[in-house]
Amino acid sequence: MTTFFNGIDRLKYDPDATGLAFRHYDPDERLMGKRMEDHLRFAVAYWHSFAWPGGDPFGGQTLDRPWFGDTMDHARMKADVAFEMFDILNVPFFCWHDADIRPEGDSFAESQRNFEEIVDIFARKMESSRTRLLWGTANMFSHRRFMAGAATNPDPDVFAWSAASVKLCMDATHRLGGQNYVLWGGREGYETLLNTDLRRERQQAGRFLQMVVDYKHKIGFEGAILVEPKPQEPSKHQYDYDVATVYGFLREFGLEKEVQLNIEQGHAILAGHSFEHELALAASLGILGSIDMNRNDYQSGWDTDQFPNNVPEVALAYYEVLRAGGFTTGGTNFDAKLRRQSLDPVDLIAAHAGAMDVCARGLKAAAAMLEDGSIERMRKERYAGWDRPDARALLERATLEDCHDRVVDSGIDPSPRSGRQEILENIVNRFV
Amino acid sequence: MTTFFNGIDRLKYDPDATGLAFRHYDPDERLMGKRMEDHLRFAVAYWHSFAWPGGDPFGGQTLDRPWFGDTMDHARMKADVAFEMFDILNVPFFCWHDADIRPEGDSFAESQRNFEEIVDIFARKMESSRTRLLWGTANMFSHRRFMAGAATNPDPDVFAWSAASVKLCMDATHRLGGQNYVLWGGREGYETLLNTDLRRERQQAGRFLQMVVDYKHKIGFEGAILVEPKPQEPSKHQYDYDVATVYGFLREFGLEKEVQLNIEQGHAILAGHSFEHELALAASLGILGSIDMNRNDYQSGWDTDQFPNNVPEVALAYYEVLRAGGFTTGGTNFDAKLRRQSLDPVDLIAAHAGAMDVCARGLKAAAAMLEDGSIERMRKERYAGWDRPDARALLERATLEDCHDRVVDSGIDPSPRSGRQEILENIVNRFV
Amino acid sequence: MTTFFNGIDRLKYDPDATGLAFRHYDPDERLMGKRMEDHLRFAVAYWHSFAWPGGDPFGGQTLDRPWFGDTMDHARMKADVAFEMFDILNVPFFCWHDADIRPEGDSFAESQRNFEEIVDIFARKMESSRTRLLWGTANMFSHRRFMAGAATNPDPDVFAWSAASVKLCMDATHRLGGQNYVLWGGREGYETLLNTDLRRERQQAGRFLQMVVDYKHKIGFEGAILVEPKPQEPSKHQYDYDVATVYGFLREFGLEKEVQLNIEQGHAILAGHSFEHELALAASLGILGSIDMNRNDYQSGWDTDQFPNNVPEVALAYYEVLRAGGFTTGGTNFDAKLRRQSLDPVDLIAAHAGAMDVCARGLKAAAAMLEDGSIERMRKERYAGWDRPDARALLERATLEDCHDRVVDSGIDPSPRSGRQEILENIVNRFV
Amino acid sequence: MTTFFNGIDRLKYDPDATGLAFRHYDPDERLMGKRMEDHLRFAVAYWHSFAWPGGDPFGGQTLDRPWFGDTMDHARMKADVAFEMFDILNVPFFCWHDADIRPEGDSFAESQRNFEEIVDIFARKMESSRTRLLWGTANMFSHRRFMAGAATNPDPDVFAWSAASVKLCMDATHRLGGQNYVLWGGREGYETLLNTDLRRERQQAGRFLQMVVDYKHKIGFEGAILVEPKPQEPSKHQYDYDVATVYGFLREFGLEKEVQLNIEQGHAILAGHSFEHELALAASLGILGSIDMNRNDYQSGWDTDQFPNNVPEVALAYYEVLRAGGFTTGGTNFDAKLRRQSLDPVDLIAAHAGAMDVCARGLKAAAAMLEDGSIERMRKERYAGWDRPDARALLERATLEDCHDRVVDSGIDPSPRSGRQEILENIVNRFV
Repeated sequence: MTTFFNGIDRLKYDPDATGLAFRHYDPDERLMGKRMEDHLRFAVAYWHSFAWPGGDPFGGQTLDRPWFGDTMDHARMKADVAFEMFDILNVPFFCWHDADIRPEGDSFAESQRNFEEIVDIFARKMESSRTRLLWGTANMFSHRRFMAGAATNPDPDVFAWSAASVKLCMDATHRLGGQNYVLWGGREGYETLLNTDLRRERQQAGRFLQMVVDYKHKIGFEGAILVEPKPQEPSKHQYDYDVATVYGFLREFGLEKEVQLNIEQGHAILAGHSFEHELALAASLGILGSIDMNRNDYQSGWDTDQFPNNVPEVALAYYEVLRAGGFTTGGTNFDAKLRRQSLDPVDLIAAHAGAMDVCARGLKAAAAMLEDGSIERMRKERYAGWDRPDARALLERATLEDCHDRVVDSGIDPSPRSGRQEILENIVNRFV
Repeated sequence: MTTFFNGIDRLKYDPDATGLAFRHYDPDERLMGKRMEDHLRFAVAYWHSFAWPGGDPFGGQTLDRPWFGDTMDHARMKADVAFEMFDILNVPFFCWHDADIRPEGDSFAESQRNFEEIVDIFARKMESSRTRLLWGTANMFSHRRFMAGAATNPDPDVFAWSAASVKLCMDATHRLGGQNYVLWGGREGYETLLNTDLRRERQQAGRFLQMVVDYKHKIGFEGAILVEPKPQEPSKHQYDYDVATVYGFLREFGLEKEVQLNIEQGHAILAGHSFEHELALAASLGILGSIDMNRNDYQSGWDTDQFPNNVPEVALAYYEVLRAGGFTTGGTNFDAKLRRQSLDPVDLIAAHAGAMDVCARGLKAAAAMLEDGSIERMRKERYAGWDRPDARALLERATLEDCHDRVVDSGIDPSPRSGRQEILENIVNRFV
Repeated sequence: MTTFFNGIDRLKYDPDATGLAFRHYDPDERLMGKRMEDHLRFAVAYWHSFAWPGGDPFGGQTLDRPWFGDTMDHARMKADVAFEMFDILNVPFFCWHDADIRPEGDSFAESQRNFEEIVDIFARKMESSRTRLLWGTANMFSHRRFMAGAATNPDPDVFAWSAASVKLCMDATHRLGGQNYVLWGGREGYETLLNTDLRRERQQAGRFLQMVVDYKHKIGFEGAILVEPKPQEPSKHQYDYDVATVYGFLREFGLEKEVQLNIEQGHAILAGHSFEHELALAASLGILGSIDMNRNDYQSGWDTDQFPNNVPEVALAYYEVLRAGGFTTGGTNFDAKLRRQSLDPVDLIAAHAGAMDVCARGLKAAAAMLEDGSIERMRKERYAGWDRPDARALLERATLEDCHDRVVDSGIDPSPRSGRQEILENIVNRFV
Repeated sequence: MTTFFNGIDRLKYDPDATGLAFRHYDPDERLMGKRMEDHLRFAVAYWHSFAWPGGDPFGGQTLDRPWFGDTMDHARMKADVAFEMFDILNVPFFCWHDADIRPEGDSFAESQRNFEEIVDIFARKMESSRTRLLWGTANMFSHRRFMAGAATNPDPDVFAWSAASVKLCMDATHRLGGQNYVLWGGREGYETLLNTDLRRERQQAGRFLQMVVDYKHKIGFEGAILVEPKPQEPSKHQYDYDVATVYGFLREFGLEKEVQLNIEQGHAILAGHSFEHELALAASLGILGSIDMNRNDYQSGWDTDQFPNNVPEVALAYYEVLRAGGFTTGGTNFDAKLRRQSLDPVDLIAAHAGAMDVCARGLKAAAAMLEDGSIERMRKERYAGWDRPDARALLERATLEDCHDRVVDSGIDPSPRSGRQEILENIVNRFV
C-alpha cells in the first residue's frame, strides 16, 4: 500500500452522507432489470488522474505527485496508486494510453519494453482487483514526432511508427481482456490547409483504420474498435470532427459495420452539438459504442474536460443510451481532469465520487422516463400519420409526379400541429 | 422601363473609377485561358435583392419597394426591376425560389398558376436578356406548413406538398435552361430531440432526394442537383450540417455520384469551418458544385448574409475552386442581403458591384498563386516521402505487424520537418 | 371571459400532479422567513406571450391568435386574454412595452391616445386582479424609425421621439403602480463602425439616461430605473454589452447610484458569461435590480428566449440573488417565448407553469445551500489570510517597495492551497 | 555572434523580392508627415520568439533551441540570439516578461539576482543596438504560486510577491528606457464562482494598480502604465475582460487618467469584438495606449496568437490608431508565436518579416483612406442634424417633457436615411 490516499477508505453507498460516500450510486440497485453498475460501467482514465501535471497553455505544473518522473520506478508507483484508487472508488473499469503508463524510451524498442513490463504488472494486479480494462489506446499526439499527424503524417515513417504503436496497444488490450480499443486522432487533421493534401491524408487514415480492423480479426480480439470524434484542438481541424463526419468516413471506406464511436460530451459541445444529439445520431446510424462523460464549460472555447455535474444534462444522455438498448462493450469513462487548483488526494476521490453520483441520478431519471413512457408515446403519435398505408406507399414508391397529383387532386392543405416542446420539457423535469 | 433605378446606367469597367463602376471586374479579361466572366459566373439572388423587406427578429420592414405586395401586378413589376438590375450589373445569371417570384395562392393550384405565369414572363424576358438561370429552388421553410419540416415532416401531406413543389420548380428550372437545381433544408432538422425520430426523418430525407434524382433523369434535366449545407438556423439542428455530414448522408443513400453541393461562406463559418475548408473537402470528395459567396460576420452567431468584402478570404476560396478545375454547371451566387439600413436603390447596385470587384480581385490572386506554383510545389514536396516505392507498398498492403517489424528492425526515429505555415502565408500575401 | 383558455382552470399546487398544476411552486411556502411568492416575484411578459406571432428570420407567423390585428378591438381582446392568463397562473406581476399593448397610430399623438386607452383598461382590470405591474418599458427597436438607434440615432428627431415615448411609458408605469422602469437598447449600438461616431453616440445615451433619472424624480416615481444589458442582436454591437460594460457607462455619467440592472440569462450567455457571473458581479457593484429568467440554447448563437428548464442552473442564479439579499423592487420576469411550433393555448400555460416550478426548485435549493452554510464557510476560509492585521495593512497602505522588503526580508515562498472546485460542486449537487 | 541565424542577413526593403526581404515595409517612407517606422513602432516579443517551446495542451516541446535550459548560460545565449534577430529585422523595439529572460531561482532573491544580471546585459547590448524597449512586464501567471491569482490571490503573501515582482520589473523598465509598463492578468480572475469573493478580489486588484501608479510617479518613470484586456484563458473569467470592462474598473478606482490599455487583436476576438471596435472604443474613452498585433483564428475558441496576415483587417485597425492621432508611447508588438510545426530559424524571421509587411500595407491603406477623406466626410454628414442649434439644445438641457412637447407640437415623423454600409465598405476596398 502506498501512502497517497492515507485516511481515505473504500467509499460506501450512504444516501444521507455529507462526506466522502456515494449518495446515489448503489452498484446493486436494479433498474430496468439490470444492476446499476452493469448499466453505467464506470471507468477511470489513467491519463488525467495519474499522468496530468496540471499545466495549461499559460502555466506549468501545479499538481505534485510522488510518482511524477520518467523512470520505471515512478511508473510502478503510479500503477500502485491507480489500483488503490480503483479500489477506493469500486469502479469496474479503467482505461489507458501507452504513454500514460510507461516512460518514453530512447527508441521504439525501449518504449516497448517499458510498456510491456507495466502491462505485466497490470495483469498481475488484475488477478486480485475487480477492476477490468474498458479500453486501451495509443497516444499518437503528444510526442513531437506526431506534430503533423500519425496515420495522416506526410512522413511514411510516422505512419509506420503509429501502426507499430497501435499493434502493441491492441496486443496489450487483448491480453488484459479489454472490451474495446479506441482511436482518437488529435493530430489527424491540419494546422493550415495551405500545406495539406486533404485527399491523401484521408486515404492514409482510411487505410490505417482498415489495418486496425484487420488486425483485430487476426488476433481474435472480440472487443469493439471505437473512433472518438473531436472537431478541433489541438489541430485547427480534425478529420474525426463529429459523429456525422466519422459516419461519412466509415461509409467511404466500407467500415461502418466494423467500427463504432466513443462519444464525449465535451467534444460534442465543441462541435456545436448537444451530447444527446451525438448519442441519438450515433444510435440511429448503428454506431454508438461507448461514452466519455466529461463536460465542457459552455463559456470556454477549448476542451475543459470537467467532471460532469449537471444531472438534467446527464439524464438526457443516458436516456439516449437506454433507448438504444444500453451499453454492450461500452461504458462510462471519465475522461475528466481535476481543475489545476485541486491539489489534494481528496480532490481526486471527491471528483470521481461526485461524478458517479451525478451519473447515477441521471441514469435513474432516464430509466424512470422510459418506464413512464409519456415521451415515447408522444413521439410515436407525432409520426402516426406515416403508419397509414397510403403514407407508407408514398415513402416506398411515389414519384414527384405522384405527389403532385395527390396534392392537386385532393386539394390537401396540411394543418400544422403543436410540437409540444415545453410540455415535453416539463415531463423531463418531473424525473430529473 | 421602371423608374426604380433612374439615373443608374449599366456599369462599366474602369479601373480608375471612384463612383459606380467595376474597378476590377472585366468580364473579358482572360485568366488561365478563360474569360473572367466564365470563371466567376456571377448570379443575383432574387430573394434577398427583390423580396426581402429588411426585417430582423427585433424589427420589421425597413425597405420600401414599390413592388412589395401580394398581387400578381406586384410580382410583374418585381420581375421588371429584376431584369433591369441584371442588365445594369451585366450579370450572366440569376437564381430564385418559387416563393420569391409569385404571390402565395389560396391553394396549391392557385400558387402553381401564379408561379407559371411568372415563369412565362421570365422566359419572354430571357429572350432579350443575356442573363441565364443559374439555379432554381423551392422555398420549403417560410410558410407555417413547413414549420416542422418539408421532406422530414411528421405529416405525410407536407412531404407530398413539398414533393409537388419541387416538381414545379424543377420543371420551371428545366424550361428556363437552368444549370442546376438546389435544395436547402432550412426546416429539415429539429427544434428539440424530445419530439424527433431521427432515423425516420433521415429516411424520409433520403427517399425525397432519390425522388428528385429520379425526376431529373425522367425529364432529361442535364443540370446538377445540389444540396446546400447549413448547420442550424432556423432549426436548432439541420441534417445538412456541413460538407462532411452531407457526404455521409449521400453515401448512406447511394447518391454520392448523383448529387453535389452548393457551399456558402456564411454557412461554413456557422458550422465552425473556414470557407476554403468546405470547398477543399468537397473537391477532395468529388462533390463540389457551386458557391454562395456571402460572408458571415465573425462576431455574430447568426446568418448575416453580407456581401463579400475581404479579398484575401475570397482569394483562398477561389484558389480551391481553381485547384478543383473551376466551375462546370456551378457559379458564384450572391446569397447576400443589404444591411437593413441600406435603403436606397443605389445601395443595391453598389453592394453587388463592390462584391463583384472583390471576387474579381480574389480570382486574379488565386490564378496568380496557381500559376506561380510555389504553394503547390511546397505541398507536393511535403508528401514526397509517400512517393517512394516502399512507402507506397506500406499504404497498399502492409499490416500492423509489417509496420511494427519495419520500425523495430530499421530502428527508425522519424525526424519532424517544418510545416512552413508562415512562409506559405507570406506567399499568399504576395498575391492578394 | 374570452374562450381562449376554455377548459383550463386556475392552476393549483399539487406535488403529485402529472397534468397542469404546480408540483413545486407553492406561493405560501416559507423560505428564509419569506413567502416563496415574495421571493420569486414572477412576472409574465406581455410581448412574447400575447404579441409575438411565431416568426423567425426564415419564416413567418405560425401562431394564430384571435386578437392578432391592428385595431383597438384586437388590443382590448388581448388585454382580456392576458388578465385571464395572469389569473390562471396566479402570477403577482406582469410587464409590457408600449408597442405590445396598443396598435401603432399614424402619428405620435394617435399612438399616445391608443396607448392611454389601454392603460385605462389595465388600471380598471387591476382593481379586481391581484396581478401588479413589475415594469413598463418603451419599444424603441421594432419600428423602422429606430433602425439606426433611439437615443443614439444620428437624427435628433428620433432622439426626441424616443424621449417622448419614454415619458409616456414612465407616466403609465407610475400610474399603474409599476415597481421599476426598464430600458433595453436593442438599437443603441451599430451595424458598422465605418458610419458610427462612438463618442457622440455614447454621449447621447448618457444624456438620455440622465433625462430619465431626472424625470423619475420629478414625477415622484419611487421604483427603480433599470438598464438591461445585451451584447448584440439585433445590432452587431450594443453599448449595453454586459454588466461590466454598463457599470463603466454609469460611472462615466455619474449614474451608478441612480440606475440598476435587469439581467437576463440569455443575454449573459450571448456575452460569454454565465448567468450567475453577471448576477454576482452586479451584486458586488451594488447594481443588481431584477432578472429575466429565460435561457438561451447553448448551441445557438442567437437569442432563443426559452423558458428555463435546468434546475441546477436556476439554483445557482437564485443563490446569487439570495446572497445579495433578495429582490426589493425587482422580480423574476419570463422574457420567454414559446417555440414557434407550440401552437396551442395549453402550450402557453404549460410553459409558464413548468418554468415557475423550475424556479421554485431552484430557489429552494439555493435557500438550502445558504442555510447549510458550507459554501460560504469555505469561501470565507479561503480568504482568511487577509483578515490578519499585517495583511490588512498591506492592502491599506503598503507600497511596492514595502512589499519587496517583506518578500525579501522574510524569505516568503507562498504555498498554493487546493481551490476545492469539485468538492464545492458536489456540495451544490447535494441540494439541487 | 551565435550561429543560430547563420546565412540570414539583415533584411532589406525590396518591393520585388520573392525571398526574405521587406516588400512593403520601408522604415523611411513618409506617411502623413511621419516616417513609417515612427508610425508602426514595431516590437518583438521575447517570450514567444525565444522562450516558447512549442507545446500545446495535447503535446510537448517541438521547437529545439540551443538556449533552452534553466541556467544563466542559457539565458545569456538567448539574449545574444535575441539581439541578433532584432538586428536582422531592424526593429526599433522589443518587450519582455521577467520570466522570459532569466531562469527562476530557488528564492525571490535568487530570481532577482538572475534578472538583474540579464538586465545588465540588455543595458550593455542596447548601447550598440538601435533596438529600444517598448515595454516590460512581470509574468505573474505561469508559476504555480500564481495559480489562484497574483494581486487577486486569496493569500496575501502572493499579493506581496506580485508587488515585489512588479517593482523589479518597473525598475528595470525604467533603467532600460522603456516607454511603457504593461500588466496582463492571466490569473486575475476565477475558475469557479463558488470559491470566489468577487468584491474582495476586485478591491485587491484596484489597490494593486494604485500602488503601481504611485510607484511610477515615485521613481519618475514617464512611460505609460498599460493594462491588457483579455476575457478568459487561462482563467474561466478574467477581470480585465475587454476595453469597456477595464474602463469601468479604472473609473471605479479613479485611475482612468493614469492608466491606458494595451489592446490585442486576438483578445478582442475572444471577447466577441472586432479589433477595430476595441481600438475605437478605447480611443473614444481616451485610454488607447498600445497594441498587440497578433490575430486569432476565427474558428478556434482559444488564443492562437498568430502573426497577422490579413491586410484589410490590419488596415481597419491602423485606421482607428491614425484617427486617434497615432501612437505616442505605444507601438505595434507582435505577441505572436510561430505555429508549433514551424521549426526552423528561417520560420522565425519570415514570420516577423511577413507580419511587418502586412502591417506596412495596412498602415498605408489606412493613411490613404484618411487622406482621401470620404469616410470621415460621410460619417460627419450622418450626424449633421445634431449640429443644428435646436438639436444642440436638445442634448444640453431638454427634459423628457420638452421632447414630448416637441414631438407632439411639431408633429414630427422622422424619416430614416440609408446607413450606406456597403458603399463605405466599397470605399475601404479601394484602398486595401
